[in-house]
Amino acid sequence: MKSSLLSLTLLGSFWLGSATTLGQASDYPIQPVPFTDVHVDDPFWSPRIEKNRTETIPASFARIESTGRLKNFDMAAKGEGKFCTTYTFDDTDIYKTIEGASFSMAVHPDPQLDAYVDSLIGVVKAAQEPDGYLYTARTIDPANPHKWAGPERWVLEHENSHELYNSGHLFEAAAAHYQATGKRNLLDIALKNADLLLDVFGPNKRHVAPGHEVVEMGLVKLYRLTGREKYLDLAKFFIDERGKREYDENSPDPWKNGKYWQDATPVVDEDEAVGHAVRAMYLYAAVADVAALTGDEAYTTAVDRIWDNMVGKKIYVQGGIGAVPSGERFGENYDLPNHSAYNETCAAIGNVYWNHRMFLLHGDAKYMDVLEKVLYNGMISGVGMDGKTFFYTNAMQITDHYQHHDLERERSGWFVCSCCPTNVTRFMPSIPGYVYAKRNDDLYVNLFINGSADVDVKGKSVTITQENNYPWDGGLAFTLKPRSSTEFNLKIRIPGWVQNEALPSDLYRFEGNSDAKPEINVNGQAVDYTMDKGYAVLSRKWKRNDKVEVMLPMDVRRVVANEQVEADRGKVAIQRGPLIYCAEWKDNDGQASNILLPEQVEFTPTFESSLLNGVTVLEGQAPKVEVIDNGLGLKTETKPVRLIPYYAWANRGPGEMQIWFPEKVTGVELFAEESK
Amino acid sequence: MKSSLLSLTLLGSFWLGSATTLGQASDYPIQPVPFTDVHVDDPFWSPRIEKNRTETIPASFARIESTGRLKNFDMAAKGEGKFCTTYTFDDTDIYKTIEGASFSMAVHPDPQLDAYVDSLIGVVKAAQEPDGYLYTARTIDPANPHKWAGPERWVLEHENSHELYNSGHLFEAAAAHYQATGKRNLLDIALKNADLLLDVFGPNKRHVAPGHEVVEMGLVKLYRLTGREKYLDLAKFFIDERGKREYDENSPDPWKNGKYWQDATPVVDEDEAVGHAVRAMYLYAAVADVAALTGDEAYTTAVDRIWDNMVGKKIYVQGGIGAVPSGERFGENYDLPNHSAYNETCAAIGNVYWNHRMFLLHGDAKYMDVLEKVLYNGMISGVGMDGKTFFYTNAMQITDHYQHHDLERERSGWFVCSCCPTNVTRFMPSIPGYVYAKRNDDLYVNLFINGSADVDVKGKSVTITQENNYPWDGGLAFTLKPRSSTEFNLKIRIPGWVQNEALPSDLYRFEGNSDAKPEINVNGQAVDYTMDKGYAVLSRKWKRNDKVEVMLPMDVRRVVANEQVEADRGKVAIQRGPLIYCAEWKDNDGQASNILLPEQVEFTPTFESSLLNGVTVLEGQAPKVEVIDNGLGLKTETKPVRLIPYYAWANRGPGEMQIWFPEKVTGVELFAEESK
Repeated sequence: MKSSLLSLTLLGSFWLGSATTLGQASDYPIQPVPFTDVHVDDPFWSPRIEKNRTETIPASFARIESTGRLKNFDMAAKGEGKFCTTYTFDDTDIYKTIEGASFSMAVHPDPQLDAYVDSLIGVVKAAQEPDGYLYTARTIDPANPHKWAGPERWVLEHENSHELYNSGHLFEAAAAHYQATGKRNLLDIALKNADLLLDVFGPNKRHVAPGHEVVEMGLVKLYRLTGREKYLDLAKFFIDERGKREYDENSPDPWKNGKYWQDATPVVDEDEAVGHAVRAMYLYAAVADVAALTGDEAYTTAVDRIWDNMVGKKIYVQGGIGAVPSGERFGENYDLPNHSAYNETCAAIGNVYWNHRMFLLHGDAKYMDVLEKVLYNGMISGVGMDGKTFFYTNAMQITDHYQHHDLERERSGWFVCSCCPTNVTRFMPSIPGYVYAKRNDDLYVNLFINGSADVDVKGKSVTITQENNYPWDGGLAFTLKPRSSTEFNLKIRIPGWVQNEALPSDLYRFEGNSDAKPEINVNGQAVDYTMDKGYAVLSRKWKRNDKVEVMLPMDVRRVVANEQVEADRGKVAIQRGPLIYCAEWKDNDGQASNILLPEQVEFTPTFESSLLNGVTVLEGQAPKVEVIDNGLGLKTETKPVRLIPYYAWANRGPGEMQIWFPEKVTGVELFAEESK
Repeated sequence: MKSSLLSLTLLGSFWLGSATTLGQASDYPIQPVPFTDVHVDDPFWSPRIEKNRTETIPASFARIESTGRLKNFDMAAKGEGKFCTTYTFDDTDIYKTIEGASFSMAVHPDPQLDAYVDSLIGVVKAAQEPDGYLYTARTIDPANPHKWAGPERWVLEHENSHELYNSGHLFEAAAAHYQATGKRNLLDIALKNADLLLDVFGPNKRHVAPGHEVVEMGLVKLYRLTGREKYLDLAKFFIDERGKREYDENSPDPWKNGKYWQDATPVVDEDEAVGHAVRAMYLYAAVADVAALTGDEAYTTAVDRIWDNMVGKKIYVQGGIGAVPSGERFGENYDLPNHSAYNETCAAIGNVYWNHRMFLLHGDAKYMDVLEKVLYNGMISGVGMDGKTFFYTNAMQITDHYQHHDLERERSGWFVCSCCPTNVTRFMPSIPGYVYAKRNDDLYVNLFINGSADVDVKGKSVTITQENNYPWDGGLAFTLKPRSSTEFNLKIRIPGWVQNEALPSDLYRFEGNSDAKPEINVNGQAVDYTMDKGYAVLSRKWKRNDKVEVMLPMDVRRVVANEQVEADRGKVAIQRGPLIYCAEWKDNDGQASNILLPEQVEFTPTFESSLLNGVTVLEGQAPKVEVIDNGLGLKTETKPVRLIPYYAWANRGPGEMQIWFPEKVTGVELFAEESK
C-alpha cells in the first residue's frame, strides 16, 4: 500500500457524526448517539431488524453467489472469463451486504458470519488491481470491458460506468466493517482504492462529476476515520465539479439538460431537487457532510433551499420521492401523479440519510418529522413481512384497470438491478442510530422506539429507557438513569402531526385544526415546558429513575394536498400518528378504487394482533361504487371500509390499493370489460 | 444559373404520376387523373376547398407576414438583422402556402393572388445565396446562425437543421407553381438550389440521411419535370443513406436508437413504421416514388411490409397515426392509447400522399380505403369549419378530468411550429386529384365526389360525372360520356366498410357480418360484375350517357379493435359509411365520457342540414352514468345519445369528446372535485 495509514481509533460515531482521530475545523454541532449504544427492544422494530439479520442478510449473500456477482470478482482476480451479470455496479451489492452484515454483527456478534465475510473480503482483495483499481467489469478482461465501462478507465464515469459509485459503496462498507470488527482487511482495500482516486482526480488532474454519487459520502467516512484531509478535499472536489458541463439548458430532456445527474447547476447555486432521486439524496447528504466539516455557508444554504423545494413540492404523502419512472427521478414541482408514482426504495433510504444530516446540522425537529414519515411509510413498504421480498418502486395507487403499468404490484426476491434489496440490508440494522442525539447540555429524543441507550451527557453517563406502544399508541414513557444527578435538557421531539403539520411545508395539511399541546408529566406531575424547534424542552436536574410521560394525541386525521397537486385535488388521505393508511383490496371486497371518503366518514382504530404482524386498522362506513346489471350500470352504497397502514400493503397477494380517496365524485372514467 | 435547364413541357400529372418530358425506364403503372381535369362540384368538398381558397390561403399569407417569416427572407437578402422566428424550417411555411395558392390558381385563376405570389417569390429569390443555398436561418448572419443550423452548412442536417427539408418544400412548391402558372420564377430558384445539392451530396461527396425527409419527394418532382436523372439519383441516394449511422440499438430511446429519424435500419430492410410520423410518411412516399421510377423490387417490398405494419398495428380507427406525443411518433405495435393520442394533422396528410402512391404502384383498393378513412376523419378534423383554425394534434378522447394533458381541445389559428396549417393549405386544393386514375383499359373511380372529369382512356376522351350525396348516403350515380363509344373497364372502388373490412387488416373489425354485395345497375338494369382488388369491374363498350348506379349499404356499424389494443378492449366505436362517429359534450348534456354503448343500442341516422354545415347525426338511447347526491353517489340511466361525425368535433367550444365507448363497465376511476 502506498499511503502510510494513520493510526485509527475507533470512535462510536465516526461514520455519521462528529470528531475523529484527528481534530478538524468543525463538524455537525449535534452528534448522534451511535446505534451500538442504543439497545432496541421494540415490538415494532426489533422483529424487523431481527428479520433482516436472520433472513435478509443471508438471502442477500445467497443471491450474490447465485447470480454471479461473486464470480465476477473471482474472474477479475484470475483475469479470465466474461463479466457475467448485467450492470457494472453489481459489485456494490457485495459491499452493501457486507455493510449490513457488519452493522448487524456490531450489535449481534456472529463468528460464522464474520468468517464468511472475511472470505468474501479475500475474494474482493484478489480482484483489486495492483494500483488499487477495483472494478470487475473492466479487470476481468481489460481489452474488452463491459460496454458501460468505456475503453479506458474513468472515461465513461460521468455517463454510465459507475466506477466511483463502486468506490463509494466500498468505502462505506469498509468503514462499517472496521467499526464492527476492528479488522482492517476491507478497510485496507478501500484506502488503497481511495489513494488511487487521490492520484487520479483533483485540480490539475482528471476532472469529473461522478455519474452516480455516493463516493462523496464514502470519502467523508474515510476522512472521519483517518483524519486525512485529502479524502475530504476530494469529496468536496467531486461536489464542486457539478454544473460545469455544457448541456442544452433549453431541452426538457433531463439527460440533455444535465438535471438527470444533478449537473445542470453548480450545487451551491441549486434551489431545486432534481434528477435521479437516489443520486440526488446521496449528493445532498454529502453536501451536508461537507458543509458541517468545512463550515462552508454556501453549501448549507444550498441544501436548505433544495430541502425546502423537495419537502414543499416534490414528496409524496407517504414520504416517497422520485415521481417519474423514466430516469427514476424527481418530476416538476407539484407533479405527483398517483398512478405512475415511482418512489424507489433506495431513494427513501437516501432521504433518511439526508434528513438525518440536516437535523445534525440545524437541530430542527422538522427534519426528523420527514425522516419519520419516510421511515414508517414509504421506506419500510419496500420490504415484505418475510424479510426477503422487496419493492423497487413504492406505488401510490394500484387499480385493476391499470395492470399494464410497469410499476410493481408485488414484491420480488431480487432484481437484475438489485440496489434496493441490498440497500435495505445495510439500512435496517442502523435504525437505532437515528433515535437519539446530543449537543452540549441537550439530549435529543427523535424516535420513539422501546429499549435503552447509554449516553454520555456533559461527561456523565446517562441511561435512557423508552416504553411505549408506538406507532399504535401516543403514550410515551421515558426513564432516565443518570449515574449521578445531572442537569441537562431533555429535548423530546413533538411530531408535527400532533398539531397541524402533516409535513413541515404547505404541501399537505390536515383538515380541521388541532391546537392540542401534548401533556407532559414528570414523575406523575404535569409540567410546563417550552418548545424549541419542534422539541419539548425539559430542563432540570435529572435524578435516577426520573420518569417522563408524554401523551401524543393520535386522532385519525384527514390529509389534503396543496391544490397545486393536481392528482390529489378534491381527495383525502388518512393518517394516524406517523402512519399513512391505505385501502387494500383484501379488506374491501376485492376493490379499493371504488371508495369515497366524504367528510362525515368516521374511523375507529382497532389493533389487530394477528393481522400483518399486528397493525391498528381503521374501520368505518363509506360510500362505495359498484357495478350492477351485468356491467350496464353503477350504483353507490354505504358499506364497511377498512384501512391498513400503507407500509403493510402487498403482503397478501396482488390487488387494488389506494391512498388518496375522492371526497366527492365529479366524474368517472368507465373501464370496459377486458378481453383475453 | 449553373445548369442549363432542359426544356420543360407541362404535363398534367408530372407531380404525382407518370411520364415526363424525357422517357424514363418505368413509372407507376397507374396514372392519376390530375386534379386540374377533375371539376368538383360537391356539397361536402366544394365548400371546404372554397373555404381554403377564400380563408385559409389568405390567412396563411397574412400570418407569414405578421409572424416574421417573410421578414427572415428580407433580412437574409440584406445580410443584416437577426432571425426572428423560432424554427429554422419556418421558411417552408411560405413555400407550402405558395404551393397551396398555386394549386388553387390552377383551377381558379386569380391575377391578384398571382401577383402577390410573384412578389413573395421575388423576396425568396433575393434571399438565395449566389451558389443556390437558400436557408434564412444561416444567411441572415452566417457568422452567428440559428443554433439548430450548426456552425457550417449541413453539419447538423441530420440532427436538426432542416436545410434539406426546406429544399424539399421549395421543390414541391416550385413544381406546383410552375404547373399552375407556367412561370419559371420559383422553379429557377428551386433548380439552382437542387443543383447545389447535386454538387454537395452524393457518393464520394457529402453523405447524410436527411433529418426530416421531404427533399426526396421534392427531387422526384424535379426529376419528373426536367427529366434530369441526377435528381432522381440524389433522391435515391438520400434514401439509401438511412440506416448507416451508429446508434445504441438496445436503447429504448428513439433518438438514441435512431428510430426517430427512420435511421435505425436501412429502408430496404425495414418492416415497421417507426419514428416521427410525418418524416416517416414523406420517406415512405418517396420510397414508393423511387420504387416506381427505378423498378427496384427491394424498395417495393419494403414499403409493402411497412404499410402492412402500420395498417395492421399502428393506426387509430379515425385514421390518425403517430400515437406518441414525445417525438410526434409511432409507438409500439398495438399501443394506441386514447387519452394521449397525438395524431398530427401533417402525418394524416402524409398518409394520404403515401397511400395514393401505394395505390398507383399496386392498383389495390385497400390503399384507397385507408386514404378515404384518413381523409374523411382524422385529416379534415385538423381544420375548423371557419377554415382558419387548426388542430396540430387530433385527439381520440377528451375528458374534463384530463384537462392537464397537453393535447389540444380547441383549434388555433397558427402555431409557433405551424407546419400543419400550411400543410392543410397546400393539400386541400389537391383533393380532386385523388378521385380518378387510369391504366390502359381501366378507369378507376376511387372517391365519390360530385362533379365531372375529363379523362383520356385508350386515346379517347371520356367525361365521367358523379352524382351522389356521399358520405351521407350510399347511392352513387356515374354518367359516362365518351366522345365515341369505347370499350374499357370502369373500376369502381367498393369500400371495405361495405362488407366486413373496417380496415384492410385485422386491427379493427365490425361486430356482425354483412355479406351484402352492392347492387350495380347500368342504365337501370342490374348487372353482374366481378370484383378485382376491391374494385367492381364493369367491362363494356361505353356509350354516351350510359348511367351506372351503385348502392353502397350504409348501415350503422359497431367497430371493435383487435384485442391486443389494450386501450380499446371491451369498447366499441361507431362507423357509418366512411365516417367514424364520436359523442361530443354539446349534444349530450355536457358530457361524453359517461356513455355506455351495449350491443342493444340502436342508432337512427338523421341528416341535420343546419348542424355543423350539415351532418348526418346518429341518435339512440343508451345508459349514461351520472353523479348524484351532491357527489356522494353515481347512478346509471338510459338516456338519449347523439353522435356526430368525428371530423366535425370541436367546432362548438371545448368539452368532452369520445370515440370508443365501453360495451359494459367492469370498473371505474373516480374523479374528485377539482379545487381552484
